[in-house]
Amino acid sequence: MRKVGELLLGGCARMWKSVHRASSGVARRDPLANKMALVTGSTDGIGFAIARRLAQDGAHVVVSSRKQQNVDRAVAALQGEGLSVTGTVCHVGKSEDRERLVATAVNLHGGIDILVSNAAVSPFFGDIMDVTEEMWDKILDVNVKAPALLTKAVVPEMEKRGGGSVVIVSSIAAYIPLPDLGPYSVSKTALVGLTKSLALELAKRNIRVNCLAPGLIKTASSQKISRLGKPEDCAGIVSFLCSEDASYITGETVVVGGGTPSHL
Amino acid sequence: MRKVGELLLGGCARMWKSVHRASSGVARRDPLANKMALVTGSTDGIGFAIARRLAQDGAHVVVSSRKQQNVDRAVAALQGEGLSVTGTVCHVGKSEDRERLVATAVNLHGGIDILVSNAAVSPFFGDIMDVTEEMWDKILDVNVKAPALLTKAVVPEMEKRGGGSVVIVSSIAAYIPLPDLGPYSVSKTALVGLTKSLALELAKRNIRVNCLAPGLIKTASSQKISRLGKPEDCAGIVSFLCSEDASYITGETVVVGGGTPSHL
Amino acid sequence: MRKVGELLLGGCARMWKSVHRASSGVARRDPLANKMALVTGSTDGIGFAIARRLAQDGAHVVVSSRKQQNVDRAVAALQGEGLSVTGTVCHVGKSEDRERLVATAVNLHGGIDILVSNAAVSPFFGDIMDVTEEMWDKILDVNVKAPALLTKAVVPEMEKRGGGSVVIVSSIAAYIPLPDLGPYSVSKTALVGLTKSLALELAKRNIRVNCLAPGLIKTASSQKISRLGKPEDCAGIVSFLCSEDASYITGETVVVGGGTPSHL
Amino acid sequence: MRKVGELLLGGCARMWKSVHRASSGVARRDPLANKMALVTGSTDGIGFAIARRLAQDGAHVVVSSRKQQNVDRAVAALQGEGLSVTGTVCHVGKSEDRERLVATAVNLHGGIDILVSNAAVSPFFGDIMDVTEEMWDKILDVNVKAPALLTKAVVPEMEKRGGGSVVIVSSIAAYIPLPDLGPYSVSKTALVGLTKSLALELAKRNIRVNCLAPGLIKTASSQKISRLGKPEDCAGIVSFLCSEDASYITGETVVVGGGTPSHL
Repeated sequence: MRKVGELLLGGCARMWKSVHRASSGVARRDPLANKMALVTGSTDGIGFAIARRLAQDGAHVVVSSRKQQNVDRAVAALQGEGLSVTGTVCHVGKSEDRERLVATAVNLHGGIDILVSNAAVSPFFGDIMDVTEEMWDKILDVNVKAPALLTKAVVPEMEKRGGGSVVIVSSIAAYIPLPDLGPYSVSKTALVGLTKSLALELAKRNIRVNCLAPGLIKTASSQKISRLGKPEDCAGIVSFLCSEDASYITGETVVVGGGTPSHL
Repeated sequence: MRKVGELLLGGCARMWKSVHRASSGVARRDPLANKMALVTGSTDGIGFAIARRLAQDGAHVVVSSRKQQNVDRAVAALQGEGLSVTGTVCHVGKSEDRERLVATAVNLHGGIDILVSNAAVSPFFGDIMDVTEEMWDKILDVNVKAPALLTKAVVPEMEKRGGGSVVIVSSIAAYIPLPDLGPYSVSKTALVGLTKSLALELAKRNIRVNCLAPGLIKTASSQKISRLGKPEDCAGIVSFLCSEDASYITGETVVVGGGTPSHL
Repeated sequence: MRKVGELLLGGCARMWKSVHRASSGVARRDPLANKMALVTGSTDGIGFAIARRLAQDGAHVVVSSRKQQNVDRAVAALQGEGLSVTGTVCHVGKSEDRERLVATAVNLHGGIDILVSNAAVSPFFGDIMDVTEEMWDKILDVNVKAPALLTKAVVPEMEKRGGGSVVIVSSIAAYIPLPDLGPYSVSKTALVGLTKSLALELAKRNIRVNCLAPGLIKTASSQKISRLGKPEDCAGIVSFLCSEDASYITGETVVVGGGTPSHL
Repeated sequence: MRKVGELLLGGCARMWKSVHRASSGVARRDPLANKMALVTGSTDGIGFAIARRLAQDGAHVVVSSRKQQNVDRAVAALQGEGLSVTGTVCHVGKSEDRERLVATAVNLHGGIDILVSNAAVSPFFGDIMDVTEEMWDKILDVNVKAPALLTKAVVPEMEKRGGGSVVIVSSIAAYIPLPDLGPYSVSKTALVGLTKSLALELAKRNIRVNCLAPGLIKTASSQKISRLGKPEDCAGIVSFLCSEDASYITGETVVVGGGTPSHL
């Protein structure tokens, strides 16, 4: 038996002398400076908090959702905070909307570095025996197919800029299905797989793909949770995953659940 | 069937109006300002990069490892960068060393907010049939028992300050065992469980516990990895997990592996 | 601290005196005696091996796939072995076909106790950037929606008989996405979620739902695999999962991969 | 894009013509005929049910636990059922006991084909802050180190017979830590890693290693569980994993938890 030092094992260990200053200094003060970010489903809730945070961290952000008035309101609110934010209406389930969204972002900002896919259909709440083929179609279309196709549409723009970062918003339901939310849970599980698959396929294009799995507000496991989650709890990790600091993290899902049991 | 809005489901969704500014502004510029951090196994490699980053992000850091000269060198290097760093010798497998480490940190900085447990025994490289009882003892002692007991020793100090954050450094080997590194891999798997268990037990004390699983330098899966990891790749995520931004993330393991296959 | 005996902890521990003979004797000799089983995608490969095994273990089996000649051939082969097997054509992606399949099974055998969902679309092999919306539609329709809807169609028949067992065939690709097989991999990941979700929803109807994840023929990890898999390697576990012996196993995915790295 | 048939993808798919009869016929009637099995912690509860089942399925079984009277009682009970069972006292945490156990089994039956490692220390129930170094030592010694070393001791005997099968009994606590059972949970998580590691190392010796994770008797998730588990619920799967039917399953953990949330 022979010993192997941390050099071989630690994954990324080196002599202390070789430690770079890559992540120190100005870059970290505005970790997303000059980045162009597209966030879907971002005029409210988690998506809004993410868009806001990306802008606070230096990115130019395009927010979007299905209704013009919601887009207008979100843009006004964020611009009112002095953030670089514009907006456009987009139903991610529609091919032409996705194309227009990408074109708008490129026109406004000259390219796309970051995509956060948060748009999802409002889930139906009911016994799995009541779920119709139409419900399955809708939820798989918007929650699974749309993120895949939107990522595909964005990839060429990211390639032009030498790479990029995609974050897909899933849910703790991906790991532990929620009662009476079968198709929603299944679609969120699929997104964990989509993240892994896209990360594998897009690595050669220098595009990282990660996933966020927000927890729940209340469950039987709430005893283990110190407090309920807030939209901002999801925003910091997304900004982090989109920054240089996360440049060696891809294909992963980070659970933001306050200790909710998830995968090991 | 009835619809449930993102309010119920999104985990942390709320009206955009209620979005707090919790994570904006000065706090994020120096996310660990005035925090007192203890990092074991931190005079080299990943641990050193983590200690450095925590200090860059505003923390007062105590570095430690088994040899005085390594501690001296690391402290000199980090102080030379203008960082608030001190150091002390500590063999985490020894009860008296752990106690002295905690006492030193408390004396120097008045308390402990952050513990990063990185110290680990140099693994033996060999067929599982060559692993002796003594090797098992040593690796379980230092890699599993010591982090558990060091955390236990630190908890009362964190409680005095109203809470804290623990990050345990595991390895991708926790998920995919490395050939000829059986006991090392098993010890790293145990740390994923220890993280979950500590997170559950310490939530009521407002202490979060998360885990880092650095990837490997080269494996059969290197085709999927855009580049090899560096110590700094592990530093940003640890600082993030110790910051307010991660206040709803506990019990989780984040893989920093460049796309290495891990758990789903 | 107090000790808790295996009675509390072991999950199912009891005094040895109370050990039942539930699984001994005749039942185990023909573990699926008098059970009515429906297996889709079963005229070839894994599905055929499963159908054959269920019949050898005592079940009356209805095989099906998209082409009449394949059904005829499989039925002839299995009947030639003295097995109780009939067959019908079914394209699981078509609502009317699913209904006819269930009706046929009920007419032939008076009910359904077991459903093995193996039918899947032939995957497209190519870069994720070449995947069209039509390909996503097809693969999600047949691989995800169809198993969900077929299970829904079968549930009332199982309820009439007091319960039942569903096994969904996924793939190791559910856990580790295969290069150039993105949508296939995503659909197989979704099936792991579907299994969890159906198990949760159908427990109250005394229906168990489990999943099979067959491994690959050759991969970089083949060094760890003693040999390549055969269809029969997948058949025994399915018969087991459908038997009384597995009456406390539901919502689980069993990987049949010869040691291929999968989830922890 | 080109299609790939199930031949490439299905993991083990082949033309129906090539389907072997490997698992049909007599072998399956007595799937463990002439196998020599060693089961630790088997005079009560889950271990007893497993020992009984292996014997019912044709194996010659050596039961063991720490007390002679428990061994005597279990042997008498099983012999009274006409099963081929002998017994010996063994404290698996003691090196000499492990060696004697292996020697006894070899003397009695001429070799060992199957090892089921079930012995575990009675867990301490209490807050993680009350766990002493001695408790950690004891639980890691008996629950983690002993299975590793016992497997090591058995491997040469299995090699003489051309291979073998090891099943390690873990717990659902491996995945979701139990409150106030920290060290127990951590030790059970470690066993999932040990299973993966041993499977990897022992594949070249034609020895498969799998893991069983029994669920709990009652938890907050009991709503999802149709009934409470019994020892026999754990016995069938162990016999299956030790049989030829499972010859392509290694490194896996099967949860027997009635739908308890576990890993995805």
